Amino acid sequence: MTEVASGWLDRLRERLGERVSVSPGDLNAHAHDEGTPYTFTPGAVVFAGSEADVLATLAVAREERVPVTPWGAGTSLEGAALPMPGGLSLDLSGLDTVGEADAVGLTVTAGPGVRRVALNRRLRPHGLFFPVDPGADASLGGMAATNASGTTTVRYGGMRENVAVLRVALMDGRVLTLGSGARKSSSGYALKQLFIGSEGTLGVITSLTLRLHPLPPATASVQLAFPDVADAVLASVTARGLGVTPERLEFVDAATVRAVNRHRSRRDPEAPTLWAEVAGRDAADVASGLAGLREAAELHGGVVVGEARTPEAQGELWAARHGVYDALRAAWPGHATRIGDVCVPLSALAGTAALALRLLEEQGLTAPLVGHIGDGNLHLLMHAPPGDADAWARIDHVLHELAAHAIAVGGTCTGEHGVGLRKRAYLRAEHGDALDMMRDLKALFDPHGLLNPGKVVGDPDGFPGRLS
Amino acid sequence: MTEVASGWLDRLRERLGERVSVSPGDLNAHAHDEGTPYTFTPGAVVFAGSEADVLATLAVAREERVPVTPWGAGTSLEGAALPMPGGLSLDLSGLDTVGEADAVGLTVTAGPGVRRVALNRRLRPHGLFFPVDPGADASLGGMAATNASGTTTVRYGGMRENVAVLRVALMDGRVLTLGSGARKSSSGYALKQLFIGSEGTLGVITSLTLRLHPLPPATASVQLAFPDVADAVLASVTARGLGVTPERLEFVDAATVRAVNRHRSRRDPEAPTLWAEVAGRDAADVASGLAGLREAAELHGGVVVGEARTPEAQGELWAARHGVYDALRAAWPGHATRIGDVCVPLSALAGTAALALRLLEEQGLTAPLVGHIGDGNLHLLMHAPPGDADAWARIDHVLHELAAHAIAVGGTCTGEHGVGLRKRAYLRAEHGDALDMMRDLKALFDPHGLLNPGKVVGDPDGFPGRLS
Repeated sequence: MTEVASGWLDRLRERLGERVSVSPGDLNAHAHDEGTPYTFTPGAVVFAGSEADVLATLAVAREERVPVTPWGAGTSLEGAALPMPGGLSLDLSGLDTVGEADAVGLTVTAGPGVRRVALNRRLRPHGLFFPVDPGADASLGGMAATNASGTTTVRYGGMRENVAVLRVALMDGRVLTLGSGARKSSSGYALKQLFIGSEGTLGVITSLTLRLHPLPPATASVQLAFPDVADAVLASVTARGLGVTPERLEFVDAATVRAVNRHRSRRDPEAPTLWAEVAGRDAADVASGLAGLREAAELHGGVVVGEARTPEAQGELWAARHGVYDALRAAWPGHATRIGDVCVPLSALAGTAALALRLLEEQGLTAPLVGHIGDGNLHLLMHAPPGDADAWARIDHVLHELAAHAIAVGGTCTGEHGVGLRKRAYLRAEHGDALDMMRDLKALFDPHGLLNPGKVVGDPDGFPGRLS
Repeated sequence: MTEVASGWLDRLRERLGERVSVSPGDLNAHAHDEGTPYTFTPGAVVFAGSEADVLATLAVAREERVPVTPWGAGTSLEGAALPMPGGLSLDLSGLDTVGEADAVGLTVTAGPGVRRVALNRRLRPHGLFFPVDPGADASLGGMAATNASGTTTVRYGGMRENVAVLRVALMDGRVLTLGSGARKSSSGYALKQLFIGSEGTLGVITSLTLRLHPLPPATASVQLAFPDVADAVLASVTARGLGVTPERLEFVDAATVRAVNRHRSRRDPEAPTLWAEVAGRDAADVASGLAGLREAAELHGGVVVGEARTPEAQGELWAARHGVYDALRAAWPGHATRIGDVCVPLSALAGTAALALRLLEEQGLTAPLVGHIGDGNLHLLMHAPPGDADAWARIDHVLHELAAHAIAVGGTCTGEHGVGLRKRAYLRAEHGDALDMMRDLKALFDPHGLLNPGKVVGDPDGFPGRLS
């Protein structure tokens, strides 16, 4: 540790005492995320327990010019939560209070460290839930910071649509309360929306008021196989035209069904496959929804693989979809993974899926292609032995081509995982001159470049460490 | 016209020729809006026909330091589109092209001057519609600029949720394309959201790509009367819990039903009343939705006034709701109107409605109270003879108390009409320190303060003319 470093560390300890850790275990726990191979070890971790702790940390960071990166649950897939080596990791998992749910206003206020599974466990007895489901048991602050979404977004929207109020601590010491408890507003500039998806580069989220939804009285699910990806996409659009808005609408490609069949000893048709869940008032209502999905599927050559109306049967039906990761791990033990995440207009989705499968074939790779098909969001679950440089170069090629294609067809380089470090290279192509305006905004909120430096709008080559 | 003024006028004419008008008719047509009593006459109107015309106008405004205010259809209710006296009114109604609808991606691209009724006429043969319905036949650019919403927002969201891509011309001559054709994104800062609701103070919208929705295959409607406003609110929440999401959910107070009864010779129960429309796959599906609404209403003391399942019958049922303005005009011929617009958490809605009715009584006023009840959005349709200063002072008092109350209970001073001139006085109370950050953003995008000056984040006392 250099003298300069120990200077800010002393200041930090004066302000935050035992909330500051430099233990190797704590430093190492904040040096990795779930989606990148990088190790960026912070110089110290602050375990904040309150908004006051966050402000004290930002004050020291500002006065001593120390970079500070917020940390929620570490489930980031693109490096958004990785600290600057030697800098500060600001761990918010201790801001974990949950207020009383407002069962009429349909909101609840929670700390940024609360995880979504724990929140939903608390809400369930009230007949309510928070719908945004990115898969991982992420922190709510991290989910807002990346504009997370997932399986239920087709019906309920993502974080952008489900955060009512955000409290954020700014680098200059101010705390702003953004948004309101009203379901809509035309009052002033949408600063709340600016912070959602800014990945801790503009301020630190210290509290969220979230929009809740009643648990549906009845649900049912169907698994549908299609001749072709394009048919599956068209069926999903036709279903909407028939008046069916599914709760979830998930896709996997034929090769992945084959892998899951092998792993789970199933005999599902090895074809592009959709899983859909519908909700409704009662059994008759969801039966009508299922009929609509069947009708839409049949118009596009689809066949019903299975239907499920009880919770247990639905769990079994969806197990094949949820078994993709396990099948991948079983088939390729010891492989590391890297998940592609693009989102395109629905009219470009079939072409994008076809391109993904062709790129895999050209590069001699296999990878499950899964998607939130109602949103046009595709994931490619790339995998290779961690040390196989050649395979990772081919993987990088595939994911690069896919991101470039998504932008070229009017989509985005990331549908829900965020920019972090690895998607920065695409922001110029996607946003053009707007990237300069984003950088101007960054400079306005964080003039010394101390908040999660280098991320999102930073120079793609400007972060320490090998970024591939 | 002063020498200085004729200087910029010459420059404008050099660049834009006959698109520049100083005819008294054109100046007067851009000096008023639909919701304020002010007359702010511009020095010239530019009738832009293209993005290039917009850029040429902004260039002259920048070089000659002339204030410029975008104009769509002039349906603003809070003064957002009123020009600076002697400044420029930039009329965008000529940017009225509509592209081909993408029936798979469910989008369409249109100019900011296109009006919503014309757009929906074009979309209908494709089985699609653009849902945002603020009542007035507003321009799409104006609707985005104020984050407009309305009757269908409870189901489809407002402009914030239904604009995919926004092109904006900045004061410095750049044109930014914000957003993408993907249904969601986690790529970069949400500049598109910043422009939605900024009322032309940050840039000029030159094109919008909008999210479309399939026309529902079947709809039905019900009119429900309740003992009390609180019961109506709780019934709307209970309905959602029963799995019913209405397409529209509209409220009027008892006195207003009485006024409409008198005007239309109806005998509806003179009680707080809800109108709800449900959509679905077919007749059975919508019947199930109506059953859910009835069940929810009965749990809270509501009774069915009428049900309608055909388009004609629904038109008749809703006529009583839509007849509020006509009843107002018939009962008070020659009165001018001023519409209050607050939005509160649903848990505060009944209390806010009660306060509104109490304030009216205290001030010896009558005014229809109508609301988009699923969003917590209330309108108070104040009216008085234009010259009755005492009545307008009492009206101002009621609307002021209502806006202050909405903010105090965690809501917003404007749910959908925007800030314009008259709601500026509430932004400090609603947004606190965030107002300073909004002003910093304004300065970043418009350093010389030329774009729709004084509006939204401007000094509440800083605009010429009497503002009450």
